[in-house]
Amino acid sequence: MARVVVDVMLKPEILDPQGQAVQRALPRLGFAGIADVRQGKRFELELEGPVDDAALARIREAAETFLANTVIEDFTVRVEEAATSAPSSSVVGDAK
Amino acid sequence: MARVVVDVMLKPEILDPQGQAVQRALPRLGFAGIADVRQGKRFELELEGPVDDAALARIREAAETFLANTVIEDFTVRVEEAATSAPSSSVVGDAK
Repeated sequence: MARVVVDVMLKPEILDPQGQAVQRALPRLGFAGIADVRQGKRFELELEGPVDDAALARIREAAETFLANTVIEDFTVRVEEAATSAPSSSVVGDAK
Repeated sequence: MARVVVDVMLKPEILDPQGQAVQRALPRLGFAGIADVRQGKRFELELEGPVDDAALARIREAAETFLANTVIEDFTVRVEEAATSAPSSSVVGDAK
């Protein structure tokens, strides 16, 4: 089963209040040196068939049609290799 | 200015109603062959300084402390090269 990731972010010229809230909270919490934060959405799609050009074209169409609002949002579609699907948070030790 | 991306996804064992809603909508809209959809958050952090191990450790701490709820969410931290920051949506033609 192949995984395709669709990242949806507000266009750079669109105000991002969620990202701003995070950015303003960071110094208060002791994290300095972060100039800007943008927050967006990440969709992980598990495909039943092979990830060929036709499948990617269909996913791009789906992303454009209803995963992203292309008036205010940009999206990227990419295939994620199976090796990178393990979260790196397990390396730093999360609360599993 | 370097960009660090923090992806936050619900843990696999946690129910994801948003992802399910997307998955159920896809066949109705004519997109078949997608077995599963998970929806999460993507944070793009622009760092003022260099992206060294210390900076990444601080960002991991920030992600663990307040970008992700590690009881129900996993996160990954990765440095994004400047070349890949251009959205691929501009290739397929979005509504710019």
